[in-house]
Amino acid sequence: MAYQQSFDVRTRKRGASEITDVIADIVRESGVVTGLVNIFVRHTSCSVVLTENADPLVRRDLETLAARWAPDGDAAYRHNDEGPDDMAAHGRNVLAGSSLTIPLGNGQMLLGTWQGIYLWEHRTSPCRRQLVVTVVG
Amino acid sequence: MAYQQSFDVRTRKRGASEITDVIADIVRESGVVTGLVNIFVRHTSCSVVLTENADPLVRRDLETLAARWAPDGDAAYRHNDEGPDDMAAHGRNVLAGSSLTIPLGNGQMLLGTWQGIYLWEHRTSPCRRQLVVTVVG
Amino acid sequence: MAYQQSFDVRTRKRGASEITDVIADIVRESGVVTGLVNIFVRHTSCSVVLTENADPLVRRDLETLAARWAPDGDAAYRHNDEGPDDMAAHGRNVLAGSSLTIPLGNGQMLLGTWQGIYLWEHRTSPCRRQLVVTVVG
Repeated sequence: MAYQQSFDVRTRKRGASEITDVIADIVRESGVVTGLVNIFVRHTSCSVVLTENADPLVRRDLETLAARWAPDGDAAYRHNDEGPDDMAAHGRNVLAGSSLTIPLGNGQMLLGTWQGIYLWEHRTSPCRRQLVVTVVG
Repeated sequence: MAYQQSFDVRTRKRGASEITDVIADIVRESGVVTGLVNIFVRHTSCSVVLTENADPLVRRDLETLAARWAPDGDAAYRHNDEGPDDMAAHGRNVLAGSSLTIPLGNGQMLLGTWQGIYLWEHRTSPCRRQLVVTVVG
Repeated sequence: MAYQQSFDVRTRKRGASEITDVIADIVRESGVVTGLVNIFVRHTSCSVVLTENADPLVRRDLETLAARWAPDGDAAYRHNDEGPDDMAAHGRNVLAGSSLTIPLGNGQMLLGTWQGIYLWEHRTSPCRRQLVVTVVG
């Protein structure tokens, strides 16, 4: 039987916010010892990603790269109802993904030392983001 | 015990076709209330992705971006046995991925309002694509 | 009950090494007939990906594309503690991902004929990479 919890994150602007501890708490509450945890965001303009948790400049440089992968206000975009960051956000979401599936062992996530889980907001304005965490084992 | 079904999609050309309803039906047939559904495509030149399901221009703009991420007929490609879209398709597949894992609650997928599931064909010619849907709970 | 095994891969340099057979063996040992296998790498500077397993030029061309997606030694990077390939590797990891989830049927992975599983090293120097394989069914 799967264990599931949802929670919201209020983002203030574009950028990555660490959510590793929230997920770790939910995993603990699940009581699952060996299995998988899936973290899923119910939106198409932000991402859930793993990246380096030590130097904040890594997340800054990821923004620099993302601005090349899917630039704001590109003249070629046809979808721009919600401003110059609208289609850029959808493009980045497809590249970086909407979910992660992480192994559990000994009742906790088997993350590497430098792996942190981040909600990566791609929109420039504040948003309320809904996440669903599901544990199977 | 996992529940599994396979199905084929015949694509006509490059582009994204929505398959949300097919997956929703399989989830219903599985009888799983809380868990995960995995959608997997058995090919390396198309993708399964989540993206905005309202404005078709989003999918059009994703093609525009994909043409930059992995252009057709790039002079640097060494693998081009099947034409100018061959390596472009493999590149896009690595970026956009071959599968999704989506949470189930109350017997259905917990997609956000604007999230649709798409088979994204990266080849320019018609193809028969095999998908496998697996539900665990 | 989930089945889990870990193993290490020593990479010698940047590039993709096939690990399909190692995963297939672990799946066999799990005894799971229908379900999912998750392959996860505990690092933020390499990836686990599916791609074409026939022509090695595909992997070579993926390197060519990756060098555009996240170039070495880009002047815009602020994080470069470990050399010009440091941030390039983190960027490529976010794009190509850290894990795969693949369906199992009849006790084996339901890969397509041309799909191989690769550990894609993004660093230019040798590394020891830890992988975790989890089977649920």
